[in-house]
Amino acid sequence: MPDVSMLETFKNPSDAPYVIEHVAEEFTSLCPVTGHPDFGDVVVRFCPAPGRDGGVCVELKSLKLYLQSFRNEGIFYEAVTNRIRDDLAGLMKPVWLEIETRWRGRGGIRSTIRARHGEVPASEG
Amino acid sequence: MPDVSMLETFKNPSDAPYVIEHVAEEFTSLCPVTGHPDFGDVVVRFCPAPGRDGGVCVELKSLKLYLQSFRNEGIFYEAVTNRIRDDLAGLMKPVWLEIETRWRGRGGIRSTIRARHGEVPASEG
Amino acid sequence: MPDVSMLETFKNPSDAPYVIEHVAEEFTSLCPVTGHPDFGDVVVRFCPAPGRDGGVCVELKSLKLYLQSFRNEGIFYEAVTNRIRDDLAGLMKPVWLEIETRWRGRGGIRSTIRARHGEVPASEG
Amino acid sequence: MPDVSMLETFKNPSDAPYVIEHVAEEFTSLCPVTGHPDFGDVVVRFCPAPGRDGGVCVELKSLKLYLQSFRNEGIFYEAVTNRIRDDLAGLMKPVWLEIETRWRGRGGIRSTIRARHGEVPASEG
Amino acid sequence: MPDVSMLETFKNPSDAPYVIEHVAEEFTSLCPVTGHPDFGDVVVRFCPAPGRDGGVCVELKSLKLYLQSFRNEGIFYEAVTNRIRDDLAGLMKPVWLEIETRWRGRGGIRSTIRARHGEVPASEG
Amino acid sequence: MPDVSMLETFKNPSDAPYVIEHVAEEFTSLCPVTGHPDFGDVVVRFCPAPGRDGGVCVELKSLKLYLQSFRNEGIFYEAVTNRIRDDLAGLMKPVWLEIETRWRGRGGIRSTIRARHGEVPASEG
Amino acid sequence: MPDVSMLETFKNPSDAPYVIEHVAEEFTSLCPVTGHPDFGDVVVRFCPAPGRDGGVCVELKSLKLYLQSFRNEGIFYEAVTNRIRDDLAGLMKPVWLEIETRWRGRGGIRSTIRARHGEVPASEG
Amino acid sequence: MPDVSMLETFKNPSDAPYVIEHVAEEFTSLCPVTGHPDFGDVVVRFCPAPGRDGGVCVELKSLKLYLQSFRNEGIFYEAVTNRIRDDLAGLMKPVWLEIETRWRGRGGIRSTIRARHGEVPASEG
Amino acid sequence: MPDVSMLETFKNPSDAPYVIEHVAEEFTSLCPVTGHPDFGDVVVRFCPAPGRDGGVCVELKSLKLYLQSFRNEGIFYEAVTNRIRDDLAGLMKPVWLEIETRWRGRGGIRSTIRARHGEVPASEG
Amino acid sequence: MPDVSMLETFKNPSDAPYVIEHVAEEFTSLCPVTGHPDFGDVVVRFCPAPGRDGGVCVELKSLKLYLQSFRNEGIFYEAVTNRIRDDLAGLMKPVWLEIETRWRGRGGIRSTIRARHGEVPASEG
Repeated sequence: MPDVSMLETFKNPSDAPYVIEHVAEEFTSLCPVTGHPDFGDVVVRFCPAPGRDGGVCVELKSLKLYLQSFRNEGIFYEAVTNRIRDDLAGLMKPVWLEIETRWRGRGGIRSTIRARHGEVPASEG
Repeated sequence: MPDVSMLETFKNPSDAPYVIEHVAEEFTSLCPVTGHPDFGDVVVRFCPAPGRDGGVCVELKSLKLYLQSFRNEGIFYEAVTNRIRDDLAGLMKPVWLEIETRWRGRGGIRSTIRARHGEVPASEG
Repeated sequence: MPDVSMLETFKNPSDAPYVIEHVAEEFTSLCPVTGHPDFGDVVVRFCPAPGRDGGVCVELKSLKLYLQSFRNEGIFYEAVTNRIRDDLAGLMKPVWLEIETRWRGRGGIRSTIRARHGEVPASEG
Repeated sequence: MPDVSMLETFKNPSDAPYVIEHVAEEFTSLCPVTGHPDFGDVVVRFCPAPGRDGGVCVELKSLKLYLQSFRNEGIFYEAVTNRIRDDLAGLMKPVWLEIETRWRGRGGIRSTIRARHGEVPASEG
Repeated sequence: MPDVSMLETFKNPSDAPYVIEHVAEEFTSLCPVTGHPDFGDVVVRFCPAPGRDGGVCVELKSLKLYLQSFRNEGIFYEAVTNRIRDDLAGLMKPVWLEIETRWRGRGGIRSTIRARHGEVPASEG
Repeated sequence: MPDVSMLETFKNPSDAPYVIEHVAEEFTSLCPVTGHPDFGDVVVRFCPAPGRDGGVCVELKSLKLYLQSFRNEGIFYEAVTNRIRDDLAGLMKPVWLEIETRWRGRGGIRSTIRARHGEVPASEG
Repeated sequence: MPDVSMLETFKNPSDAPYVIEHVAEEFTSLCPVTGHPDFGDVVVRFCPAPGRDGGVCVELKSLKLYLQSFRNEGIFYEAVTNRIRDDLAGLMKPVWLEIETRWRGRGGIRSTIRARHGEVPASEG
Repeated sequence: MPDVSMLETFKNPSDAPYVIEHVAEEFTSLCPVTGHPDFGDVVVRFCPAPGRDGGVCVELKSLKLYLQSFRNEGIFYEAVTNRIRDDLAGLMKPVWLEIETRWRGRGGIRSTIRARHGEVPASEG
Repeated sequence: MPDVSMLETFKNPSDAPYVIEHVAEEFTSLCPVTGHPDFGDVVVRFCPAPGRDGGVCVELKSLKLYLQSFRNEGIFYEAVTNRIRDDLAGLMKPVWLEIETRWRGRGGIRSTIRARHGEVPASEG
Repeated sequence: MPDVSMLETFKNPSDAPYVIEHVAEEFTSLCPVTGHPDFGDVVVRFCPAPGRDGGVCVELKSLKLYLQSFRNEGIFYEAVTNRIRDDLAGLMKPVWLEIETRWRGRGGIRSTIRARHGEVPASEG
């Protein structure tokens, strides 16, 4: 079961704002209704808080293990997206954060969900 | 015959604004003049009303059946697009909604129609 | 209902062997079990019998109408492919003929079926 | 010779603003200097005037015939683009209209011309 | 745990040889050493035995469930490929059968494994 | 009207066999039934007879003008292909020659026609 | 040697603002340090001054010859870009003009240079 | 070890603002934790200070050698990106500068980091 | 320095012939003349000897480390290719083996080298 | 002027047959009739004679300079191809050699020329 305590952070090495984007192309969870597997990409995009203010970045390997822990969870697209947004926003307290999940499709329909935390600048949206 | 009563909803699991996009790549209806089939994609993109305000999301399987029900309808491109916009806007009362239909083409001309409900933010247009 | 009598032919304008390939990208029929629509491409590839021997080619518009007539048929992938092969081979008596159907997929599995009539040369396979 | 009287319209079925885009990928005319053929795409993009105000949309088959009528005209890229813009703007009196012509190229140079009528919103440009 | 008894068949509707190819793009299993998930495509390509000789084809939905049952198996690339080949060859006794697994990659290396049963014609290899 | 006398040749500068392929991507003619324009690519591929035996190659600019002369001809796909094959084979008397025409499509069906003269080696087919 | 006097113009056939873009994909010059050839694309994008105010457009064939005249010039990327911008801005006195040069790369680094004249609207940037 | 003194500059040949973008597609460094190699692209995008104010551009060959000097450095993605930004901003004192690093991926996650110096205009972001 | 003793093997789990292909997309070594880095892909494709005859397959992680050990070697394209072929052929004694190296290019020339051991079947070449 | 004496060789480091392919994507020469530049790719593909028999490979930098020396030559497509074939076959005396030139196109026609020396195996053709 996914648990925010699996996630680790490291101190932001910079005080100037910049953008980090991680694209995990091998995400899978289960449909809570049918039990069939869902497959998709998860995009994590954020501007970390400045290092001098205690800002942190999520550590890449712990992010991978956290995402893998959804493998046998029965959970809707919308819930996955909002949950990852809440877990990472709570963990890192970033300037802004955007989670995008892109699902391969079921019954001929492909879906994308985008949830945000904070004020995402127009140039990054 | 398409009927809005085929569509089902579920309560929006979040109160924060986010975006949902469904792309149905296997849409088909009939040309009302010639009776020949038209083929295209239908994109449904919206920001649901917050859950705490009674906001809902359209349920994916009912959306698929609703779209399939156009299969033997004689209906123009513009009418398909405006009808889906009206049916889904009436059903979900979302913050905003955009319907885009992209048609494979007839006589060497490919067409795209985009209709909106509410104020679509510049970053999503 | 598909009916071979919908198909028309014209006299092959050449006596030398050559190859004709038609790719219909907007084929749809129904799954006989679930009633859900299937979507795919149908490829018709053949070498017509020489004109001096009474060889004929299938006329393009009648082929289009014949393929459209599967729209509301409940029929399996394998049966569609074998039926088109048999109908066109019976109609044209070509030197060789190959039918390939490529299906968009259901449940995450895309399928392709290839059926032949006569001896397809290695260079055309 | 192209003639605006070839174009037909139908009443806009909606009062809310929406966007229609037609892409004709098989346009050809002649270079007025050399007589050699030019090939290109013509994109017609517009927001029709509301139906309740007498707004109309161009009918697709008449648009196709109108575009085909340039086939043996000797006319420059810039003139084709401005002429189609003027003919369609005069015909439909749309909220806004944009014509884009994309030419395959001569002498290793590919060209694109974009002409507008009315105020095209930033989100559609 | 994968079990060949999950697989169902239907009678081959034809006596003439033809080729069936199923591409499952959402396969996942576990690395038996590290426990990390592997992701890949599984291609099943075969010529069924003629219907008059009792030839059968694998049923698509049962194939999907069979492939899903590898989800939590710890198993090497080579073993997955050989096992599917053996299970399907034993089940259908086809004229020939080829299994190809294409893996997304680990440590910057992507792998493909191809195993065969019977004599695959050069034109299909 | 297309006329083989428009075509010019130059002496093959080599005695060793080699292959020349010209791809004309802007071919257009008219459908003899409806009068509507057809658009496609014409591929000319051949091995010229050796220079010491009087072998010749078609000159590129004359080939372009010859292909442009089909612009206002009403002619079927099959007839275009066989005619170009016959005209060029008669002109150049090459070791072998292959003409392939690939048509953009009408009514959702794209077509390709391939006609040959002489023995095309397997490696070039 | 490139010389602005090679460039010719014609009167802008329109008084309304519109955009012209020419993409020359076969540009080559020489590195002034090593003498090795550089290869790239040159994009010329501008809004001509209105015809009624004496506005002109650059003539396409003269533009091609002007660009070819850089073939044996030793000149840096930045200088090519600024020089073409200055020559064309001086020649046409357009409302705005943008030159973009995209270079194939040397030593594993591909470069793009973009220079502007006048106020390029956000929608065209 | 990377050292800003490896970098050379040349005087900006223009006083008008313009944009230079260099894309180095063969960047490699080492993961400071595991010692395994990382591979990625480095994009350097900037507007140089005007030549009349002493503005300079980084010389391309010295940039290549500077980037190659990271080959055996153990350094995190974020640190690479911030370091290159600081080194080049200090060297050139440009109007604005953006560094983007795009990493091929580890453990199924691809990452992109973007750091800026000065005010990057919206049209260039 | 690359050393064949870094490579490990495991027993081939099958006695029937099949094909294994590994594509390493992040290979780098040094040019022995200039010291500049070379980048490329290495493809290892082979049919292992049957398990009952003591046949083995190369272990994936050891293959990755072996390939990484070329990072600071000065070695020509041809020598890399032949060396990997010899090392893996000696290690596994496979039925056949093919090594293909594809290099990103230097001075505008991209190179590919293919070396073989044993008799590669036409269908795999 | 191109001159075979510009080309250098090095001893083939292997006695086993293998294949080397160089793709030069930035070739340019002049049309001998119009003087306009032609642009294309040149592919050199060969199997060198075994090292123990004195076999040699063409050195990459000298090949680049040799190809650059065609820059201001007026020469036909066919002559370029046959000349490079003859020069390299005479220089290296390889087991077999194939030269392919692919030209960007003039007047809407793209051309490819392929000339061979010796017996090119079917698997490499």
